[in-house]
Order: sequence, then C-alpha cells, then structure tokens
Amino acid sequence: MGIRPRVVIVGAGFGGLAATRALARAAVDVTLIDRRNHHLFQPLLYQVATAALSPSDIAGPIRAIVSDQRNVRVLLDEVTGVDKAAGHVELGSGRTVAYDWLIIATGARHSYFGRDEWAMHAPGLKTIDDATAVRRKVLLALERAETEADADRRRALLTFVVIGGGPTGVEMAGAIAELAHRSVSRDFRSITPHCSRVMLVDAGPRLLTAFPSALSAVALDAIEQLGVEVRLNAPVTNIAHDHVEIAGVAVPTHTAIWAAGVRASPAAEWLGIGTDAAGRAVIGSDLSVPGCENIFVIGDTAACKGPDGRPLPGIAPVAKQQGKHAAQMILAAIAGRKIKHFRYRHFGNLATIGRSQAVIDFGRVHLTGFLAWTLWSTAHVLFLVGYRNRFAVGMSLFWNYLTFARHARIITGEIPADVRPATSLQPAE
Amino acid sequence: MGIRPRVVIVGAGFGGLAATRALARAAVDVTLIDRRNHHLFQPLLYQVATAALSPSDIAGPIRAIVSDQRNVRVLLDEVTGVDKAAGHVELGSGRTVAYDWLIIATGARHSYFGRDEWAMHAPGLKTIDDATAVRRKVLLALERAETEADADRRRALLTFVVIGGGPTGVEMAGAIAELAHRSVSRDFRSITPHCSRVMLVDAGPRLLTAFPSALSAVALDAIEQLGVEVRLNAPVTNIAHDHVEIAGVAVPTHTAIWAAGVRASPAAEWLGIGTDAAGRAVIGSDLSVPGCENIFVIGDTAACKGPDGRPLPGIAPVAKQQGKHAAQMILAAIAGRKIKHFRYRHFGNLATIGRSQAVIDFGRVHLTGFLAWTLWSTAHVLFLVGYRNRFAVGMSLFWNYLTFARHARIITGEIPADVRPATSLQPAE
Repeated sequence: MGIRPRVVIVGAGFGGLAATRALARAAVDVTLIDRRNHHLFQPLLYQVATAALSPSDIAGPIRAIVSDQRNVRVLLDEVTGVDKAAGHVELGSGRTVAYDWLIIATGARHSYFGRDEWAMHAPGLKTIDDATAVRRKVLLALERAETEADADRRRALLTFVVIGGGPTGVEMAGAIAELAHRSVSRDFRSITPHCSRVMLVDAGPRLLTAFPSALSAVALDAIEQLGVEVRLNAPVTNIAHDHVEIAGVAVPTHTAIWAAGVRASPAAEWLGIGTDAAGRAVIGSDLSVPGCENIFVIGDTAACKGPDGRPLPGIAPVAKQQGKHAAQMILAAIAGRKIKHFRYRHFGNLATIGRSQAVIDFGRVHLTGFLAWTLWSTAHVLFLVGYRNRFAVGMSLFWNYLTFARHARIITGEIPADVRPATSLQPAE
Repeated sequence: MGIRPRVVIVGAGFGGLAATRALARAAVDVTLIDRRNHHLFQPLLYQVATAALSPSDIAGPIRAIVSDQRNVRVLLDEVTGVDKAAGHVELGSGRTVAYDWLIIATGARHSYFGRDEWAMHAPGLKTIDDATAVRRKVLLALERAETEADADRRRALLTFVVIGGGPTGVEMAGAIAELAHRSVSRDFRSITPHCSRVMLVDAGPRLLTAFPSALSAVALDAIEQLGVEVRLNAPVTNIAHDHVEIAGVAVPTHTAIWAAGVRASPAAEWLGIGTDAAGRAVIGSDLSVPGCENIFVIGDTAACKGPDGRPLPGIAPVAKQQGKHAAQMILAAIAGRKIKHFRYRHFGNLATIGRSQAVIDFGRVHLTGFLAWTLWSTAHVLFLVGYRNRFAVGMSLFWNYLTFARHARIITGEIPADVRPATSLQPAE
C-alpha cells in the first residue's frame, strides 16, 4: 500500500524483460512501460522482412509475457523525459509515473550518419512495421519487375542493395538472395532467378568485424555461394529512390535496406549525462547513472565496457545480463547490501547465412556450416519458446527448410497504382 | 503462340481460384488478375480480427497457390472496366488485357445502406487490412480502459457492439466475448472480465436467418452463454465515434464492428447489365452475361437463383462450384459441346460460436455443440491445408483451444498519443 518500493522499467526489450523477471518474487511494485504492446524478438526480424515468418511468430504481447507476475503493471505509453528532482518519468500522454528505482532500457534506432533523408529510401530493421515495410518493398519490386518490359528498369527493380556488413546485413542479404533466387523462381513467369542481383555493401575491409577474420572469410564465401555480390571498402555516398551511390558510382535499384548503424535512444538527454559517439549513456561500472544510484541504464542504450576494455556490443545477451544485474542491484540496496560491479559473461557470437550456413565464435572454438546453422536454429527456437510457449516458429523454420517456402509472402495495405507501367499486355504463352 | 484461347479471370477468391484450377490441364492461356497479391480464406478472418490467428495463417500468395499451373500468369492490378467491343479489361495501371473468355469473380464489399459515413466508425471484415484494423481497435480499447479513471468512459471503452446477426456477426461477437472475458482477464490489472460488455445487434427477429429457426435458437442460447448481450428487432439508427444508436437509444462505445450488409463489386456497371438490390449482376442460368456468351460472372458478384427459387447465398461453396462451372462451360464451348445450366449442390450451412460451439444445418440433419465445432474446425483446417500446405492453422486452433491464448495480440503501427487520459498514476499496489 505505498510502502513497497516502486520500480519503473522503461522498455520491454530483452533488457527490460530480464529486469522485470528478476523482480518476480520481490516485494516491489513494478511498472513496465513500453510504447508498443509487444516484445519483439529482434534477431529474427529479418525473417519477417523476407516473408519466412509472420510478425506474431516473433512478437508477443507484453501483458501476456508478464501476466503471471502479479507485482507488475504494464503501461502502453511513450516516455518523453525523466524528472530526477521530482522522481518521476514523463509520458507522451501527459501523465507522469513516480519511481523509487528506475531502469531505462529503451534500445536504439537506426543512424544514417547525419543523412536522415536516406531513411525513406533505405528503411532499417528495428520494428515489426519496419519489417513489413521492407517485405512490402521487396515483394512489390518483384511484382513490378514481372511485367516491366524495359530491360534496364527490370534490372533496377531486381537489384537489392543491403548496406552494412554486420550480422543483420549478412542475414538480410542471404535471406533476400534465397527469396529472389530460389523461393520466388517458381512463381513468376517473366523474371528468372538469373535476373536478380543482391548486393551487400560495407565501408570496411571485411564482413562481421566483431568476429575473428577467419570466420569473416567463411561468411564471405558462404554468402557469395548464395549469389550475393559483396562490395567491401565501398562506402555508400548517396541514396535516392532509384539508386544507391557506392563509392561514387550509382547502382540503379528500388530496394535499399539499411543495416549500417544505430544510435541509442535519447535516455542520456533525459538524464542530462554524457554519451559516447553512438549516443549511448555513459554509466558507472554498476550500470547506475553517475550521481543517481537509483537510476540504471542498460542494453543498447548504455555505453558499458567489457573486461577487455572494448565497448560491449548491442546484442541480446548483454541486455539480458544487464537487466538481471540492475534488478539485483535494486534488491541488494533495498536489503542494505553492498553494490556490485556488472561483469559480462560472453558466450559467443552467432551469425547465420541463408538456410543452412552459420558462423559461431565461441572464443577458442569456431563453428561453421550446417552444424552451426542447426545450433543457431535450435538456440533461437528455444529462446523464442521461452517467451512465447509455442511451436509455430520451430515449425515454420523447419517447414521452410524442407520446402524453401515463404508462407508469409503477403502484401498488406493498398497496392500502389503504379505497380505496372502502362503498356498493353498479352496473356502468357 | 496466340492460337490458344485467352481466358482472363478477375479475382483470386474462392470462385476465381476454382475456375483457374479447373483449367489446369486445358490448352488455354489463363491470366489471373487480383488487386492484392494474396488469396484470403475469408471464413476465418474474424479470427485474425480477434488475434487468434495471424494474417499469413489465412492468406497465401496467389503466385504460390497457382505456381504449378504453367498456363497461368498472375497479374497484380485492379480492374477498372470491361470493354466488351474491344474484348479487353481495363486496369488501374492504364494497361489493358485482351480476353477471348472472361470470368469475373470480384466479390463484394460492405454496404452501409447509404450511410457511408458509418464506415469509419464501424469497420467491416473483408480484407486483411480490415481485420488488423479491427484487431488494433479492440486491443487499443482494452489498453485505454486499463488506465481510464472515469467509470463511464471505462465502460464505453469496454463496450463492443457487433452489428449484424448473420454467421460473421455471431462468430465475431463470440470471439470478442472470449477475448474480452477470458483470454485477456489474466493480463490486465485494473479491468476485470465483468467490466466488459459485448453486444450483438440485429434488425430482424432472430439470428442466423439462413438457418432453420431451431438452430437460431441454439445459437442464441450458446452466444448468450458466452456473455454476449443479443438485441433482436433492434435496427441501428446511427453510428458515431463514441456511440451506436440502437432503435433510437445511444449506447456509448468506441468499438463498433459492421457485419450487417454487403454490396457486390461493380462488375454489372462494367458490363452494362442489370443488378439485384445488392448490386449483384443478373446473369443467365449458365452464369453467362446475357448477350455475351464469353463472359461469366460468379460468386458474390453474381445474382443467381437456387433450385428453390431463392438467391444463392454469398458463401465459398457457391463461388467454388460456379468457378468450376464457368471453366467447364469454356472448355465445352472450345470443344464445340453444348452449354449446360449451373446447378448448385448444397452441402450445409455452418456457423461457429466461440471456442467449442457451432451449429450446422445439413438440411434434414442438424448438428450443434462440441461435435459441430469439431467438424467445423476440421473442415476449415482441411480446406486451408488445401490452399496452404501447412499445419500452422491447425496448430494454432488446437493450441488456442487448449490455452485460450491469443498469440497474435500485437498492435502494429504507431500507438496514438491519446491512448491514456492525462492523470498522474501510481504503480500497481
């Protein structure tokens, strides 16, 4: 009745949910705030973008995920600021929510390196709406190409450029290559698999820079096997609706996808603290905000160094461990115990390439090929089942593997009137 | 080669697909035109609207469905007219497609009986976008109610009015009642199952008028058991954003759903022929357009009388049988054989009420209760598997049955800023 400490958690991603769960049996009142009603399993978002999975396969209602936790209240609202003096967060609806303890886990958005006008031509991949927008773009390009009589325009429609050679870019390029080269080849009459061109572009000298260079080489080989044209040391210098300029040379395309950079949510601004170059809040080694021991910043929003002195990557395991740590810090403080430093336990880096290849870096051990892919699939299905309690993703992945099918290949929303050029057309012969 | 007859089929619903399939081995060139890229299994659309199934569970890409049929070309475009003299259809893109034979199967849209302004307050249920819009509306109403302090406003937010007591209205009301009363009750903290009110309104004296009155009574009883408040002989006299006026009395609600009337697509206008009161094209007993033996109108777009002299209902079996008949007519004519009349074979009427009740009218035999529901589920899953070749729907239905889960309960698109009233809020006690 008001004597229980109030813990406010902003963001129901991997970090926020881990913190919420770690408080399950605690005598605290938790308010979990998110501007969306669903938790999203972001690592599989590229599968929605390429029509292999449906949005609800990888998203679950936050209320359902935490429904067993009676000390949690879920708020659908957007945080717009933090009033540290008053001890409350400010919401988009105009309301405020008071906290004794605050955990900010609001993630990151895309960064176009100051070229925000590129966003409309090259969507990124962070939300369900991003993914269905990319899916729509890719599928409509194929539809337009099917009846485009002009060879150059058809070529441009069938050119897909993925910008950024990290795990997301590699996974996205591989999945588009499979969609364009294989799954779709049966279904169209004019275009053939050979017509399409999938490019993966990075400004740096190799793919997957977070991995050892031996695994980068494996990934490069595997993705080229899928028919992806990889351009390294190739900075993107401009993006327009009908082309991407790579190192000053225009490549005609109507489908560019951004996987090159992210910028943290503006938590540091709300808190009035410093950031690193990616906008992440600079916090203490215990994840708390300097001068505010009752506020924590975790996950993609936090700048935190690992044991090797390098910044921790923006991946789910980091966010989960930090969420748990922040919750434990709160419980320790309430119990009058001493504050501990956060220590990240690294299990490994994974990236998948197409339907039967993956690379995994366990540190001393590297895993590649089909075995790595099997491990990747199993791990993801297991993680998802943890959140979702259902078999659908496992079934879909397995079924797609067997059949190359893309069952979610539907275009929602109105079909634009310009899907086709104005020419008379005879039925197929 | 130009010597094969060109068959143009407009609309890839049940009728258009049945016609396409019946031409699978024929020496004709088929062009299948649809303004969407997917076939939709409309009978389960209400399950998408109530978050039990995902859009891609009940929609399949048209190209994939007909990919094995090499004599078919699929066009994503919207037909805007028919030039009978020139022998081509006109498309939204400005192109034309010439035909020797034309089958029009463009379905129906909602009819608001001349009150088109009601459409924005009471969406109907015909497309995937309709269903996700209704889902969004229902889920957002629950979210708003969760933090609404004013009792009257909360009551209005938790009042759901389904207009129209046919199978769609009954199914929709039952599914909303389950969502509002049961599945969601675990997940919210302020609102309880008892707060919500689901109304099913019809201007006529009984539900399911296409069924024998004994089954109407069973359905009425079953839906009231689910907590639905049924209002018969209750014409809707107005619909606004915050209320529905039923027989002159305003019921405050923010969620009204239209299941009361449909109007055929404007095929009759394109063809310059007569219609019945619902805008359906009046055609010959062989389904051909009077004076144009090479044009057929089928499914919800056609006014066709059954053996008992009553108009055939707008249901999938009618459309499928008519599609097959039109295709056979074309093949017969090409082979120089004689034209037959269409004769509808009626198998039965089905309607489902909630998660374990259904009514089936086989004519002499009536089936109700759990057995009917099991038959309904099996029939729908089998029909879907025919189109989709996957287990996901069966799995989802079965899983939902076991768990009352609504796995697709995600809200896509931006959350409106007004989700909540502007009041300060303390965490849950």
